[in-house]
Amino acid sequence: MAKAWHLVRRPNGMPVAEDFALRDLPARDLAEGEVRIANRWLSVDPYMRGRMNDVKSYVPPFALDAPMDGGAVGEVIESRAADLPVGTRVQHMAGWRDEAIVPAKGVQKLPEGDIPDQAYLGALGLTGMTAWFGLLAVADAKPGETVFVSAAAGAVGSSVVQIAKARGMTVIGSAGGAEKTEWVRSIGADHVIDYKGNVPLVKALGAAAPDGIDVYFDNVGGDHLDAALAHARQGARFAICGMIDGYNASEPTKLRYLMRVIAARIRMQGFIVSDFMGRIGEFHQGMGEIVAGGNFQREETVVEGLEHTLDAFLGLFSGRNKGKMLVKL
Amino acid sequence: MAKAWHLVRRPNGMPVAEDFALRDLPARDLAEGEVRIANRWLSVDPYMRGRMNDVKSYVPPFALDAPMDGGAVGEVIESRAADLPVGTRVQHMAGWRDEAIVPAKGVQKLPEGDIPDQAYLGALGLTGMTAWFGLLAVADAKPGETVFVSAAAGAVGSSVVQIAKARGMTVIGSAGGAEKTEWVRSIGADHVIDYKGNVPLVKALGAAAPDGIDVYFDNVGGDHLDAALAHARQGARFAICGMIDGYNASEPTKLRYLMRVIAARIRMQGFIVSDFMGRIGEFHQGMGEIVAGGNFQREETVVEGLEHTLDAFLGLFSGRNKGKMLVKL
Repeated sequence: MAKAWHLVRRPNGMPVAEDFALRDLPARDLAEGEVRIANRWLSVDPYMRGRMNDVKSYVPPFALDAPMDGGAVGEVIESRAADLPVGTRVQHMAGWRDEAIVPAKGVQKLPEGDIPDQAYLGALGLTGMTAWFGLLAVADAKPGETVFVSAAAGAVGSSVVQIAKARGMTVIGSAGGAEKTEWVRSIGADHVIDYKGNVPLVKALGAAAPDGIDVYFDNVGGDHLDAALAHARQGARFAICGMIDGYNASEPTKLRYLMRVIAARIRMQGFIVSDFMGRIGEFHQGMGEIVAGGNFQREETVVEGLEHTLDAFLGLFSGRNKGKMLVKL
Repeated sequence: MAKAWHLVRRPNGMPVAEDFALRDLPARDLAEGEVRIANRWLSVDPYMRGRMNDVKSYVPPFALDAPMDGGAVGEVIESRAADLPVGTRVQHMAGWRDEAIVPAKGVQKLPEGDIPDQAYLGALGLTGMTAWFGLLAVADAKPGETVFVSAAAGAVGSSVVQIAKARGMTVIGSAGGAEKTEWVRSIGADHVIDYKGNVPLVKALGAAAPDGIDVYFDNVGGDHLDAALAHARQGARFAICGMIDGYNASEPTKLRYLMRVIAARIRMQGFIVSDFMGRIGEFHQGMGEIVAGGNFQREETVVEGLEHTLDAFLGLFSGRNKGKMLVKL
């Protein structure tokens, strides 16, 4: 019997196990044009927390007592769609479950080649695309500039670090703990700040960027954003991608350096990767070149088993992942 | 004996009388190319608070134990500059004093006409120019859009209201107290929020703009900025001109709705009017048309006497002014 994670209660602050249930999916035959997919990899992402609230946002909220969804890759095991025969490797949005019934138009075939399937949930998928357009389009980062990236050991952050280095920028990343900071350095960051260390972030960033930063790629919000405000150079651009610090918080964000927006003429711009779907070709070409150059490090944190999907998701908020957090089925 | 206000101690939080002293200026003869000006009107502006701190900013800090400066208009009473004969009406930056010695290149002649001299410290000077470029260039406000302006009874805010109305926008202004809200309505605002009223700002703005706002012109920061974040429509632009709420505060800014930057793709952009000096012609032409149309209301709050300059300045932070705050000598 296929199973899927359901949202059964809207979380208040940090989600807890009781907000979710792993339930059987009703069995049914395929309709014309549908395929049945055995999922092999599920994506869990910070943005999903927003969908657990009942508020209007850029993606609709999860419905209560219904299967949740999200990125997944798998293999067609039954087909009533001519161009998706059994055995086709596909990507789709019916994640959070082991087996999915999806109409053909909701499915993309994965290319042949030696790239592992799960990369299409990460660096070569929406994660990489978020990093690409956030850095190069939203923040308009240029060769020679200094870029600060928060959560640089995360899926998006580690892609930003590597794209920025490939484009000739100086990169400062933040990450939590010795292992992650070491890894962020190993993928090319010029300076890495351990935000779990003893030095206040605003001081640590000042030491890493004595002449200030031109670009901030925000995945975290809160103190990271405040430190970036404190050290922004004139004309700095901030691409606001995520604020994981605030997703589960009921407290307001406190900013001591917000007023620097004026003196430094800072531009802060929020964005969603889907705004750039029309420019996906640029990403495929540019990222393809970087990956083909052989210097792009994909890191994955893999949790095994559908029953641990929730743990994987919650792990995003305690910094359990290095690179892309994935569930392997 | 000419006198000038001196900064004698850097204020901690809200400035107090002991931070300042009104002192004699040393008498001296003019050098070649200089003029002596009897100031008639002095400008006091919120941005001056920033110059009282010893921090790098867009204008250098005031030096301790030296005369302060700022916008002023007056009349040449002694001249060693051929093109500035005695009797010339001029504008310059040696304010906070009754009599100034200024090199000719630091002086601009006022045009002939029936516009009162002090207007060149307000709607037709940097104040109006700040409103103009903040609204039309930084926020890129378009006819038909909904604009929220904080401190709409202030010098810059009341200019924003009127420029926005002249350009066919819907305008929501905030002001404190019945007299000011009434006045903001009288200069054309479609809705006015009394921020001293009982309704929380975020609620009041929601009621005034049920479909949200396209543009926010920020003079205040704090709760006003937070309310704007709460009600920003997708693609909203915020021109961050001032944050008077924070100039004297030691507490950080608290924002509950900052995360909406992402979902609503908000662009926040800080600016300084001097960035637009190269486009001053656009302002003169556009603002000239509006003023010539006869619908532009200039409001002034006038404090008399050099010895009350400090009171006028401090009054900016308690909302004592309606329109431009001026000192008449």
